[in-house]
Parts: sequence; C-alpha cells; structure tokens
Amino acid sequence: MFRRIDHVGVAVRGIDPALELWRERFQMQLVHREVVREQGVDAALLDVGENHIELLEPLSDDTPVGRFLAKHGPGMHHLAYQVDDIDSTLAELREGGIPLIDQRPRVGIRGARVAFLHPRGTGGVLTELVEPVGR
Amino acid sequence: MFRRIDHVGVAVRGIDPALELWRERFQMQLVHREVVREQGVDAALLDVGENHIELLEPLSDDTPVGRFLAKHGPGMHHLAYQVDDIDSTLAELREGGIPLIDQRPRVGIRGARVAFLHPRGTGGVLTELVEPVGR
Repeated sequence: MFRRIDHVGVAVRGIDPALELWRERFQMQLVHREVVREQGVDAALLDVGENHIELLEPLSDDTPVGRFLAKHGPGMHHLAYQVDDIDSTLAELREGGIPLIDQRPRVGIRGARVAFLHPRGTGGVLTELVEPVGR
Repeated sequence: MFRRIDHVGVAVRGIDPALELWRERFQMQLVHREVVREQGVDAALLDVGENHIELLEPLSDDTPVGRFLAKHGPGMHHLAYQVDDIDSTLAELREGGIPLIDQRPRVGIRGARVAFLHPRGTGGVLTELVEPVGR
C-alpha cells in the first residue's frame, strides 16, 4: 500500500534559522523551497536517502501549522507515505473505515498529488499520502 | 551523515489494538516484537519500504513513553536516522554543538547500537541515531 516514508513534516518558527541545523549540522541537501499558500506554509524539502524532511514555517498564526506551533511548539507535525496510485489507495482506506481529511487528492509541494488522513483514525498521527509527479 | 530515515517511533496505548491499524488497514508487515526494558517499552517494528514504523507501548506510566502519552496522547514520539558509524556521527554532532542525551551508544531494539539527541538542540524533534547490527 505504501512504498516508503516520503517525508516527516517538521513545524518550525523560522525556516532560515532551522536550515542552519538541518543543512549545516545534519548535512542534508536542500532540494526544494516553495510557498504553499493553500496550506499556509513556507516549506523546504531536504534529502535524507530516498526520504525527505519537510520544514514548515506558517505564513500566519491563523493556519494549521501556526495553531500547531502555538499549542505544541516546534517539532514533528505529520508523517507522509509515498504511494504509486493515490486514488486507489484513498479508496481502499475509505473502505477500510479510515476517516479522510481530503476526500480527493489535491496538489501539494512540487506538484505532487497529496491527501491527508484524519489523525483520529491513525493513532494520533496526522498522515499524508504523496503520489510524486511522474509516477 | 544520515543514510535514511530508519523509523518513526509512535506512542500507542496498546500495541495489539494498534497493530489492527498498521497491519490490517495500512498493510505493513510486522517484522519484530521486543520488550526493551531499559527504555520501558513493549515495541513492534513494521516495514514500510526500507523504513520502519516503531510502535511503543509503555511498560508503566512512570516511563518516558508513559509520560509522553499522559501529556500528549498517542502520536509521533521520535524520529530515527540510520547511520553507518554511530561513534563518528555522535562525535561530529557533539563537536557541532548538538546536545546529546546519550554520550555513548547503547543497545536498542534488535541489538542495534542507538543514541538519542536532545530535542532542545534538534528543533523540538526527539532524534535517535541507529547503527543496525552487521553494518
């Protein structure tokens, strides 16, 4: 069902100071930077093997990541799995009784098709499916 | 420095009900089960590509994962990276000013050599290094 962990999303107060840690100390390569207005974030993707770390700085306090930071502080925000076919995976999960935040995929970072599952159905883990472009 | 994400550790109230989600709904293969007394957990490892999900049920309320559950509820607990040489990686991180929980590696699940970094130096993410057996 899931090919691998695609990324772990990490909420940060500021991407630029965070990059000092992830690039300099952890020696990860920054591979993409994008403002994803629909999700209210300034985002950065770093490579770690075939997986990624996605740093998320909220565009304002009144966004999902802004509210997460106010409640929990910086740290892990969501867990994303890579899938080959997001439509059939979403259908299978829906049939299995998993509550979905996104009934249909939408366009996420780097043009990937993405969808979120509700954490109340996934053991408290906000879970994202990612079908990369070109699969 | 890091080869890939080794696993994401997920705190659960009970492993057996959690496995219903992760094995049945998410179709991940259970590859290992172990009580790690030193860390106060009953743990299960599931495969997702070359990465893993590590489910953690506390052996009592008075353990790190037990206290995490009391404060935050179930969800992501820590993020682990696979490394080839944990001694040199720890030394490099220490020189880079990253605060360590474990000054030296200890034995973790499946006999791996593991060490935790302090979340105050890693953007609020409790971070583990894992050097698998046989590397």
